[in-house]
Amino acid sequence: MKIYADHAATTKLTERAAQVYLETAREFYGNPSSLHTAGQRAKEVLEDCRGQIAAMLGAAPREIYFTSGGSESDNQAIRSAAYAGKKKGKTKLISTAIEHHAVLHTLEKLEKEGFKVVLLPVGTQGIVDVKDVEAAIDDSTALVSVMFANNEIGTLQPVAEIGALCRARGVLFHTDAVQAVGHVPVNVKELSCDYLALSAHKFSGPKGVGALYCRTGAPLSPLIEGGAQERNRRAGTEDLPAIAAMTEALKESIAGMGAAAAVMRRLQDRLIEGLEKIPHCALNGDRVRRLPSNVSFCFEGIEGESLLLLLDEKGICASSGSACTSGSLDPSHVLLAIGRVHDVAHGSLRLTLGAENTEEEVDYLIASVTEVVSYLRNMSPVWRDLLEGKRQFIL
Amino acid sequence: MKIYADHAATTKLTERAAQVYLETAREFYGNPSSLHTAGQRAKEVLEDCRGQIAAMLGAAPREIYFTSGGSESDNQAIRSAAYAGKKKGKTKLISTAIEHHAVLHTLEKLEKEGFKVVLLPVGTQGIVDVKDVEAAIDDSTALVSVMFANNEIGTLQPVAEIGALCRARGVLFHTDAVQAVGHVPVNVKELSCDYLALSAHKFSGPKGVGALYCRTGAPLSPLIEGGAQERNRRAGTEDLPAIAAMTEALKESIAGMGAAAAVMRRLQDRLIEGLEKIPHCALNGDRVRRLPSNVSFCFEGIEGESLLLLLDEKGICASSGSACTSGSLDPSHVLLAIGRVHDVAHGSLRLTLGAENTEEEVDYLIASVTEVVSYLRNMSPVWRDLLEGKRQFIL
Repeated sequence: MKIYADHAATTKLTERAAQVYLETAREFYGNPSSLHTAGQRAKEVLEDCRGQIAAMLGAAPREIYFTSGGSESDNQAIRSAAYAGKKKGKTKLISTAIEHHAVLHTLEKLEKEGFKVVLLPVGTQGIVDVKDVEAAIDDSTALVSVMFANNEIGTLQPVAEIGALCRARGVLFHTDAVQAVGHVPVNVKELSCDYLALSAHKFSGPKGVGALYCRTGAPLSPLIEGGAQERNRRAGTEDLPAIAAMTEALKESIAGMGAAAAVMRRLQDRLIEGLEKIPHCALNGDRVRRLPSNVSFCFEGIEGESLLLLLDEKGICASSGSACTSGSLDPSHVLLAIGRVHDVAHGSLRLTLGAENTEEEVDYLIASVTEVVSYLRNMSPVWRDLLEGKRQFIL
Repeated sequence: MKIYADHAATTKLTERAAQVYLETAREFYGNPSSLHTAGQRAKEVLEDCRGQIAAMLGAAPREIYFTSGGSESDNQAIRSAAYAGKKKGKTKLISTAIEHHAVLHTLEKLEKEGFKVVLLPVGTQGIVDVKDVEAAIDDSTALVSVMFANNEIGTLQPVAEIGALCRARGVLFHTDAVQAVGHVPVNVKELSCDYLALSAHKFSGPKGVGALYCRTGAPLSPLIEGGAQERNRRAGTEDLPAIAAMTEALKESIAGMGAAAAVMRRLQDRLIEGLEKIPHCALNGDRVRRLPSNVSFCFEGIEGESLLLLLDEKGICASSGSACTSGSLDPSHVLLAIGRVHDVAHGSLRLTLGAENTEEEVDYLIASVTEVVSYLRNMSPVWRDLLEGKRQFIL
């Protein structure tokens, strides 16, 4: 059996979106900045896509900027707000300990430039407390950046409450909604956000394309300088085929969202219940306030990487945490932030479902993980120490 | 007749590259950062593409970084060299007056950050003098950035000589080769460059993807922070379908380069000779040292925009200068730099050929431009003043 259970890492382009890519590349290949018919026809498609994406997010068309993806959108939003704040003497940037590295590394760079970065804790459930955000905001705050849904443990943050709080306090609010858009309802008005980042390949759109929502009136400076594209905020010839395919994929995702979520919730329940039967394991992140697709566990006494490789031999594509940080020997910053100690954090497994996964596949996942965890533990000196009482069980 | 004569603005994706895009999206959709088979298969394709692109440029695979396009590549190269120079007290950045805005606007931003920017003149032929570069370089120089071929007037700069000079003087050298790669031979060793920017959609590859060559040892800092992709230098899930399609398009372009150049040189000669018969006009840029695809003229007494719109009605897609700056009322900085006065610079026309254009099309272009220029002049009060001697002819 071949099971792709790594939808948070990336998804396969839908056939309809692929056809839209192809048709747009063939029929609307002009440069949207060109004055001639070929350019103007491309421009019309571009603005039509912008309007559709805006409508799906509750935004105005002029508030949507096309980018190369989620990372670029996050970088641009944060830098724009930070530099605008600095001009007013506001140099405090508030975020959480479990953000994606596109956010965290941008904040680290800004810290080196003199900004004060505050990363709020998220507790054992992996959810930031709005009161902590409130307490952290002061007159020097330039930006609050809190992700919509975590990419490793799937927890949903109280972004609408945080947005309302920021709006009331006159502080800019950015949300990295890369894992949320196309999967759960996302409306920029309900979120009261000033910036929102999305990435097409997380909702079965093409790779290499995304968008940044920037509320009218919120500061936005270019990350990439050059031509006058995207109202002077993002240089570079627009990737129209990918933008059109992203628009198609988002339409499909939103149209099927309710049904997909229902399927995935059922599969998620079944998978969590099945895996919980493995001794000395724990679900990572809140049981309820999480994406319907996400199942993340820590298993004591094993190495996540070995688990992944043996699951791969069984035809299962899974992840230990985020794809973007694989290759790193450090344990996940997200798992450490929810209180997992290093050894336990190393024994992590993330299974992220898609609506095409089946109950049969879930049962195969449960059986395979159970078997491989048992196999790895039987070989593990750490596990022997735990069984013999030389080490204390944590989970 | 429908004629696309705006290949410098963008080109149509080849059918083979389109098929490669589609097949890669279908078969290799895994995230190259994932440890599982789907990810590792994608990673293999990614590294295979990197190797192929490197080989086509005379580079090592580890010297190729995939980006979202030429603008991003230019931005990253220039900022990397500038910030690395600053650490050593080197804050002078040398470039030319006719660079693409991706270079010029990045330099402007750096100037605001305290760097000293020197833009060298290019003379009436639109070619920078190597002696000027030599005279400008001093111990405070962090970077020299000179484009390979100009996007508006097609002039080829003496980049290999400038590269050798920079190498000898221990100064970093970047070349924006967006208009050159795939059209004329480009080899990073022969250029002695430290950075080189390229964009796929200029050689019939997909939009939204490009590459930055960065010589091993040359400083490179991320423009987009986040995941560990591209050896920690460019965050964001790699756009593998586009990268594979770019690789295919570059292979096709290089394989057909000699034949295409021969076709275009013939068409270029015919077009230039035909348009030169129009009174009071002038070719922009050197007659010989230019891309085989580029024909750029100024016609006295007309507005370039009106010319474009009337040509468009005749089925001709052309440009007044760069697509990236259309919509702007300022005359082209390139045309001003080669000594055209404002009024003359406004009457510009850029026709950029592809190998699929024909002699018949060129003849239609000549006839159409001749007719439209004459029509516009007959309506123009400026032209009447010129004829009546109330104004002096410049061309």
